[in-house]
Amino acid sequence: MRGAIIHGPGDVRFEERADPEVVEPTDAVVRTVATCVCGSDLWRYRGITPVRRPTPIGHEYVGVVEQVGAAVTTVRPGDFVVGGFLHSDNTCAVCRAGMQANCLHGGGYDGCQSEYVRVPNADGTLVATPGTPDPDLVPSLLSLSDVMCTGWHAAVSAGVRPGSSVVVVGDGAVGLSGVLAAAQLGATTIVAMSRHEPRQRVAREFGATHVVAERGEEGLAQVRDLTEGIGADAVLECVGTGEARAQSVELVRPGGTIGIVGVPHGDLPVDSLFWGNKGLRGGVAPVRAYLPHLLDLVWRREIDPGRVFDLTLPLSEVAQAYRAMDERRAIKVLLEA
Amino acid sequence: MRGAIIHGPGDVRFEERADPEVVEPTDAVVRTVATCVCGSDLWRYRGITPVRRPTPIGHEYVGVVEQVGAAVTTVRPGDFVVGGFLHSDNTCAVCRAGMQANCLHGGGYDGCQSEYVRVPNADGTLVATPGTPDPDLVPSLLSLSDVMCTGWHAAVSAGVRPGSSVVVVGDGAVGLSGVLAAAQLGATTIVAMSRHEPRQRVAREFGATHVVAERGEEGLAQVRDLTEGIGADAVLECVGTGEARAQSVELVRPGGTIGIVGVPHGDLPVDSLFWGNKGLRGGVAPVRAYLPHLLDLVWRREIDPGRVFDLTLPLSEVAQAYRAMDERRAIKVLLEA
Repeated sequence: MRGAIIHGPGDVRFEERADPEVVEPTDAVVRTVATCVCGSDLWRYRGITPVRRPTPIGHEYVGVVEQVGAAVTTVRPGDFVVGGFLHSDNTCAVCRAGMQANCLHGGGYDGCQSEYVRVPNADGTLVATPGTPDPDLVPSLLSLSDVMCTGWHAAVSAGVRPGSSVVVVGDGAVGLSGVLAAAQLGATTIVAMSRHEPRQRVAREFGATHVVAERGEEGLAQVRDLTEGIGADAVLECVGTGEARAQSVELVRPGGTIGIVGVPHGDLPVDSLFWGNKGLRGGVAPVRAYLPHLLDLVWRREIDPGRVFDLTLPLSEVAQAYRAMDERRAIKVLLEA
Repeated sequence: MRGAIIHGPGDVRFEERADPEVVEPTDAVVRTVATCVCGSDLWRYRGITPVRRPTPIGHEYVGVVEQVGAAVTTVRPGDFVVGGFLHSDNTCAVCRAGMQANCLHGGGYDGCQSEYVRVPNADGTLVATPGTPDPDLVPSLLSLSDVMCTGWHAAVSAGVRPGSSVVVVGDGAVGLSGVLAAAQLGATTIVAMSRHEPRQRVAREFGATHVVAERGEEGLAQVRDLTEGIGADAVLECVGTGEARAQSVELVRPGGTIGIVGVPHGDLPVDSLFWGNKGLRGGVAPVRAYLPHLLDLVWRREIDPGRVFDLTLPLSEVAQAYRAMDERRAIKVLLEA
C-alpha cells in the first residue's frame, strides 16, 4: 500500500509502505475511506517537534473493516467504522473512568494517512455506523476521529452547561468544533476569538453568538463587556501556545473553568489560577467515550461538524494538504483514499 | 483595646491598638469571643513571607456584634456572628457566581487576633447564629471562619461526590477539615496522608478510612493499591509546597481533579496535568458561600469541626500560640478573648 511519510520539516511524501496485517488477535485492519491532516501534525511539519527518522504520519481516519483478529467481536469485515486517534481497550480502570485517551493498554497508530490502517484493540477503539453512510456524511464522521471529539472534550472539561457563557480561544478545526460543542451543551453566550473571515463564518454557523477579532487587552475588554464584567463561565483553550494559555486564564471568571485541549507549547500561569479561583481541566480527548453519542448526532444529521473541512484532495496529494494547512489556506484538509 | 501585632519573624506581641469604629455605613464592629492562629499566619512568623513593618495579624474570629453602621440590615448588636477571613459584599457578579473570596469590593481585615474587629461589608460577610451558642459549640463555629470552609472548598473544587475516592494531602487543620468535608459529601474511600499520630486520630474521627504515613513512591504505591491502581478520583491539596503539589498530581487518576487550597509556595507541573487528563480547581475559599450550610450542620451537631483545636489559651498569650503551632506542638490553637 501507499501512505504518507514525514521525512523532516516541510517534507511529507506519499510512498510505498508494507501492507498492515492482523498481528494480535485483538487487531483489525481497516481500508481507509477518508483521512485528514491535524493541526498537531504541523508541529512536526514546522520543525517545532523534531523528526528523527522517516516516520509514517496521521492519526484520523474512517474506513471499512477488511479483516479482524480472532478475538474481535464488535466489528466485522464490511463494517464502516470510525476510530479515535488513540487506541484503547475500553475495559481497564482508566477507560471505565471515561478517560480512554489514557488507557493503561492503549497507544498511538503507525500512520493513518495511508490506504490501510492496523487498528490495535479494535473492540475498544472502533465504533461501526448503523450502515454504509451517505457520502455527504463522511466528512462529519471523519471529524469524530479527532477534532470534533477534542472540541467536545474542551467543552465537557470546562463544565459547559445550559446557560453557560463560553469563550473559545483558537479558530482552527478544534476551536470551531468547540463552538459547536458549546452550542450543543446549551451555552447561551458563545464567543469565538477569530480574526479570519472564513473561520468566523463557520463559527457563526456552529453557534457562536459573538466573534471577537481583537486579542490582548482589547479582546479581554470585549469579552468582559459580554460577561457582566467578570469573564466567562468557561473558556475552551484550543491552541496550546503560552500566549493562548495566558489569555485563557484572563478570560475566565472566578469559579469558572478552562477546558484545555491545545497541546502544550508554552507556559501557563498556574498560580494565577489559584488566586483567581479558576479551574483547569482537560488534556487529550477520550474519543471512545464520546463517539457513540456524537456519531448518533451526526447520523441523525443534528450536527454537521464536517464543515470544518474546506479543502478535499486525493490521498496521493497529501503533501499539498500539509502545505495548504501550514499556509493557513485551508482550515482542515480531507484526503480521499 | 489590645491585639496581636507581628513585628518580624518569630515576634508576635499582644499590644495596645486603637479601638475599631464604624467607618463606613456598611461596617460592623464585633467584640471577639474567640479567635485563632492559621497555618498561613506562619508564613510570616517563619520569615518566608516578609514583614515590612509592625502589622496587626489574624483573620479568623467569632464574636458578638457591638455596633453597626446605618446601612447594615442583616445583623444587629447582640447577635453572635461568624465571619469569613475575607469580607465580601455578596452582591457583585463574582459573589453571585459563588466566589465571594474574589468579591469585586472585598478584601482582608485589619488584624482579628484582637479584642474587637471592624468588619467591612457586614451584610455580605457575617452570618448570625440562631441564638447564643452553647460554649462547647464555639470551637466549631470558629473553625467555619476559615479552616472548615477551606477544607470544604478543597472537596467541592475537587468534585467529591457520593462514592468518590479521595486523598487528602496535608494533615494540618485544613487537611483534617478536608477529610470531614469529603465524608460529608459522601466519599467512600478517604485516605489521609499523615505521619503524626494525634492528627491521624482526628483524621479517623473525621471519617478517614485509611491513613498513609509514607510519602513519595511508597505513599503513591499505597494509594494506588486502594484505588484500582490508577489513583484517586479527587485529591485535596492542603499544603501549598512544591512537594505537596507535585505529589497531588501523581495521586489523582486520569479524569480526576485536584482541589487546591494550599497557598502556593512552589511549582506545580501543569503539563503533567494535561498529559494525565487531570483537573485542578480551587483557590481561596469563598467562606460566605458555604457558611449557611455548614453553620446549620454545626448548630444541629451533625459535624464537630472544632476538634481541630487541641490547645486553648487566653488571647493575651497569643505569642505562645504561635510558638506551639510553629513547633507543631498543636494542630491549631484557639484563643479566648
